[in-house]
Amino acid sequence: MKELNLGILGAGRIGKVHAENVLKLSDVRLVTMADPYFSDEMAAWAAAQGIRVSKEPEDIFSDPDIDAVLICSSSNTHAEFIVRAARAGKDIFCEKPIDYDIDRIRETLKVVEECGVKLQVGFMRRFDHNHKKAHEAVRDGLIGEPHILHITSRDPIPPTLDYVKHCGGFYYDITIHDFDLARYLVGSEITEVYAMGAARFDEEVAKLGEIDTSLVTLKFENGCYGTIDNSRQAHYGYVQRNEVFGSKGSIEVFDDRPTSIQISTEEGVSIDKPLWFFMQRYADAFRAEIEAFVDCIRNDTEPAVTGIDGLIPALCAKACVLSLKEGRPVKLSEVQ
Amino acid sequence: MKELNLGILGAGRIGKVHAENVLKLSDVRLVTMADPYFSDEMAAWAAAQGIRVSKEPEDIFSDPDIDAVLICSSSNTHAEFIVRAARAGKDIFCEKPIDYDIDRIRETLKVVEECGVKLQVGFMRRFDHNHKKAHEAVRDGLIGEPHILHITSRDPIPPTLDYVKHCGGFYYDITIHDFDLARYLVGSEITEVYAMGAARFDEEVAKLGEIDTSLVTLKFENGCYGTIDNSRQAHYGYVQRNEVFGSKGSIEVFDDRPTSIQISTEEGVSIDKPLWFFMQRYADAFRAEIEAFVDCIRNDTEPAVTGIDGLIPALCAKACVLSLKEGRPVKLSEVQ
Amino acid sequence: MKELNLGILGAGRIGKVHAENVLKLSDVRLVTMADPYFSDEMAAWAAAQGIRVSKEPEDIFSDPDIDAVLICSSSNTHAEFIVRAARAGKDIFCEKPIDYDIDRIRETLKVVEECGVKLQVGFMRRFDHNHKKAHEAVRDGLIGEPHILHITSRDPIPPTLDYVKHCGGFYYDITIHDFDLARYLVGSEITEVYAMGAARFDEEVAKLGEIDTSLVTLKFENGCYGTIDNSRQAHYGYVQRNEVFGSKGSIEVFDDRPTSIQISTEEGVSIDKPLWFFMQRYADAFRAEIEAFVDCIRNDTEPAVTGIDGLIPALCAKACVLSLKEGRPVKLSEVQ
Amino acid sequence: MKELNLGILGAGRIGKVHAENVLKLSDVRLVTMADPYFSDEMAAWAAAQGIRVSKEPEDIFSDPDIDAVLICSSSNTHAEFIVRAARAGKDIFCEKPIDYDIDRIRETLKVVEECGVKLQVGFMRRFDHNHKKAHEAVRDGLIGEPHILHITSRDPIPPTLDYVKHCGGFYYDITIHDFDLARYLVGSEITEVYAMGAARFDEEVAKLGEIDTSLVTLKFENGCYGTIDNSRQAHYGYVQRNEVFGSKGSIEVFDDRPTSIQISTEEGVSIDKPLWFFMQRYADAFRAEIEAFVDCIRNDTEPAVTGIDGLIPALCAKACVLSLKEGRPVKLSEVQ
Repeated sequence: MKELNLGILGAGRIGKVHAENVLKLSDVRLVTMADPYFSDEMAAWAAAQGIRVSKEPEDIFSDPDIDAVLICSSSNTHAEFIVRAARAGKDIFCEKPIDYDIDRIRETLKVVEECGVKLQVGFMRRFDHNHKKAHEAVRDGLIGEPHILHITSRDPIPPTLDYVKHCGGFYYDITIHDFDLARYLVGSEITEVYAMGAARFDEEVAKLGEIDTSLVTLKFENGCYGTIDNSRQAHYGYVQRNEVFGSKGSIEVFDDRPTSIQISTEEGVSIDKPLWFFMQRYADAFRAEIEAFVDCIRNDTEPAVTGIDGLIPALCAKACVLSLKEGRPVKLSEVQ
Repeated sequence: MKELNLGILGAGRIGKVHAENVLKLSDVRLVTMADPYFSDEMAAWAAAQGIRVSKEPEDIFSDPDIDAVLICSSSNTHAEFIVRAARAGKDIFCEKPIDYDIDRIRETLKVVEECGVKLQVGFMRRFDHNHKKAHEAVRDGLIGEPHILHITSRDPIPPTLDYVKHCGGFYYDITIHDFDLARYLVGSEITEVYAMGAARFDEEVAKLGEIDTSLVTLKFENGCYGTIDNSRQAHYGYVQRNEVFGSKGSIEVFDDRPTSIQISTEEGVSIDKPLWFFMQRYADAFRAEIEAFVDCIRNDTEPAVTGIDGLIPALCAKACVLSLKEGRPVKLSEVQ
Repeated sequence: MKELNLGILGAGRIGKVHAENVLKLSDVRLVTMADPYFSDEMAAWAAAQGIRVSKEPEDIFSDPDIDAVLICSSSNTHAEFIVRAARAGKDIFCEKPIDYDIDRIRETLKVVEECGVKLQVGFMRRFDHNHKKAHEAVRDGLIGEPHILHITSRDPIPPTLDYVKHCGGFYYDITIHDFDLARYLVGSEITEVYAMGAARFDEEVAKLGEIDTSLVTLKFENGCYGTIDNSRQAHYGYVQRNEVFGSKGSIEVFDDRPTSIQISTEEGVSIDKPLWFFMQRYADAFRAEIEAFVDCIRNDTEPAVTGIDGLIPALCAKACVLSLKEGRPVKLSEVQ
Repeated sequence: MKELNLGILGAGRIGKVHAENVLKLSDVRLVTMADPYFSDEMAAWAAAQGIRVSKEPEDIFSDPDIDAVLICSSSNTHAEFIVRAARAGKDIFCEKPIDYDIDRIRETLKVVEECGVKLQVGFMRRFDHNHKKAHEAVRDGLIGEPHILHITSRDPIPPTLDYVKHCGGFYYDITIHDFDLARYLVGSEITEVYAMGAARFDEEVAKLGEIDTSLVTLKFENGCYGTIDNSRQAHYGYVQRNEVFGSKGSIEVFDDRPTSIQISTEEGVSIDKPLWFFMQRYADAFRAEIEAFVDCIRNDTEPAVTGIDGLIPALCAKACVLSLKEGRPVKLSEVQ
């Protein structure tokens, strides 16, 4: 098999996760990692793996040997890097979000289309063993027509205030994954959102005008109703549950836990907390999404998560911001 | 202990449930059951228990030996019977709803207050082992401040079309129990509802302008957000789940099932469906609420579910009807 | 329907349980309770229910109005009372064990047969929702031929030392229920036992030459192997689990718990302990076995738990005592 | 860090599993795989990974660059290869069993000791997330003194008859892993076994004088009793459950399943079957045991599973064979 040569833009936490997974793939070579702010530690690690280390993204775009890129840099560079990669004829995997600006996302997708390169967006939950099986069960009609969706998605501990300031806002940072999951599970488009949200446990977050807790309701084209609840602080773990209830029954996804152990003593009966963080919870999914990206290049098939799949959750986030501000349901058609 | 003499108005399904439970109580005598439409079968059963059978409600109101009444007749008679019982100086247990009309409920409660009799409303879920423990856990601060509530409440099979026509509407018939449960679990008042609903599986229901599936969101005074999802047709059982998530953790109530059995074969691994109907699911709760009613008379304490507890869920139902009609969140203050 | 008149011999804890259940039955009258050691409290309670209170068992045997008796007295009186009741022509429900002496059991059963009365032995687990469903699943072939049986049966707290002294020994007191359950679940006769046992947590029990912890293995006629583990002290509740594994799959019975609730906090995730004591765990089964007894008299059918069902577990217990003493497997044929 | 050079003896299924895990390790090089019966496919795969392929084990033993070996060849070669590797001064990881002959195992371990090399035996369950946590909980006293152990370990589908013929017998092939797990969980030595076993579902197995179903009971030095049940055919998956019950409580390990999903329809409520095969169930454990082997060489520590840990389960297997033959409990001291 012809070897596929990859470059990674962004040498942060997620960049390293993808790099490690790429290194395990057969017939794939990780040629270069580029990041203007490369840490010494990361640079040493990359060099030890035989990866070329660069502070200059252009070293990737202009390298004729590189077939495809993974964009893992900060969110505000995504759109620009997609455009540069597309114009350089490279297939693209890009972390979410494509951008915070809907118009800019549209322009970016237009360039991708014109250049005829592939673009896969990093909604890794579609590759998760639980969510994937739930999606397939719904798609195959096991529960009939979907009537009610519930998604519960909570972080164990809140991020730093600095992170909150630069994450693009709650709905673009957190809920955007759930919007994608909602579409993936229900198999229909979201038409309306109603967002309730507040800073419930962190006054500093409130001072920023930001929120840490949210409940969003959804209406779908196929008549299904949905809820997404998020919190930045669940204390007991990274909560990832959902249910799709339909005309024939229900499929529920429960939390994954580190062990299948139950301890019973005079004090009580305990089971494990949910897996602690998204890196652990979605470790297999991160690997699978990169495999899928490589496969779609090799087999020249449609990416599993397209540019449109990157656009619509951002539209939902935009509608939520408006809904929260005005205290009313907002149709997606209002924000397009 | 002085014997307490009870009369039951309404000899239908729920009337019999209450009668059977009353018969098991010590120092309580079920003197009379009255129903203009007494079936022969029910009359024979009642007579065999030594209960006086009457077609005339007045036989109960005018009987000086009867200390208290259970109103189990059709909903449109509740308010009138409460007033008559109160004026006759009898303590009152009344099935939900007190009435469909908010003004009439208020007037009824006023009479009850003037007459100085007790009134307990039949929201039996407050006496359920699961919901009660969840309520206590929240009240005792185990999960801190409540942030998110989810209530899922679904019937196994839809009622007859005739029932749908006369039940007072989906929100007064079904969701009213969940409004009560929501207040009970969260320990704070509901301030806003947003209702989404449709006839999803029954065209005949649609023709009546009625719904069979609903998703309602709630805002509470204490800042908590909530969802209630209902369906008249879950196929696999009577679904009664909820979660209260707060600043310190989460309490989840899962479905009760007939057995704790798991069967594993080549075909798959199966557990029991949820208990099939509300009569089974809440059998213990029905007993406990009557015991509580008797106890509150004997000990001259406040009923566990007061007239106000009967009023507010009806207000929520009214707000939902408006919300569904206008497609917008409705504040409870709008409908008072 | 003709009223059935019952007498209860023995006014202790279990006698009261049965009395309460009898009082709930239609067309059944509890005429007399007799116990030489009637407590004042119990006597007052019985009198308040309209039950005749006697210190003289003969008042029951010689009462021509009494159709059937429930023998709830101390174990050493069971055989004698069965014989007296049988000779008086009364149908008999008797708590386990019939006796500790195999020969005496056989003689007792002979008298019962000669007198043509019914005898049901108090193995209430056969009427439990879980065990019954497991039994039916095995009987109906859902798991094919049974290959392996596991029964786990543990008390939450040990009884008094006085109780231990007079209970007839661990295998006649505790494991006897599991021998019955084993036969009921597997549907085949036990042919060999191997008993391991020791006083593991109570030195006073050890001084009595008694045990508090046991593991017994079983061989069945149909080739199935089994284990029964017992402890008098599980701390976290009354543990009642079992599994039958066969040629087509497995059926597992898990512990029943007071609620279906799960609480997740920083400290961990907890569910309820198993139901605390056999009175709660088997409350429904106690009621059902008395109903079955009444029904078998009324319909003149075979009792659900026969005299032979009372004999064989006692044989198993005898074989276990020998096995434990000699440290070797013992065939039931050795002790018959 | 100094690179560690490994060789693998045996290029079958398990050899490949280990090879793949070795390839993922940092600073470890897989130099050579040797197998007289190297398949073309495996040879091609190994070559593509840059591994030297040989049909001659001596190519590994005599290679001064190779620091340590993994013995994954057929069981009857284990002892010989251990001796040759030890004499060549190489650290050794060896799949179970060391040998079927107790004397030969002892001689082998003597050589290892004389040569001062490390030997780790391939009981991978000690590295499993579930069993490891259970072991730690027992070790740390969470359940007090262990009183009862249950191990349930069943294969989904039986192996070929040819495999059965050459696997060394049921107790050396299957139960040997459970003997190791028993010692690991209880933290005490086994002193007696009693084995019951038969060919329950396969007549061809019976004709070979072999068994496919077994129940073994154990006594431990610390007074704990135990059971191990095995079947070669569970249909519904690879069953790996256990419980340690002690003076303070119980720890239960339940089956791992592919997803945390529950589907509820009119037909019933289903969850996933257990993970299907040991390769999937213990994938992480296989990786962890190789990491532990590499670490113990690097840090010059005692292997996590020593030669004695390889010897004792074989002694247990020998005692079971005798117990099954003679139908009586056998003390381990009898077979040493």
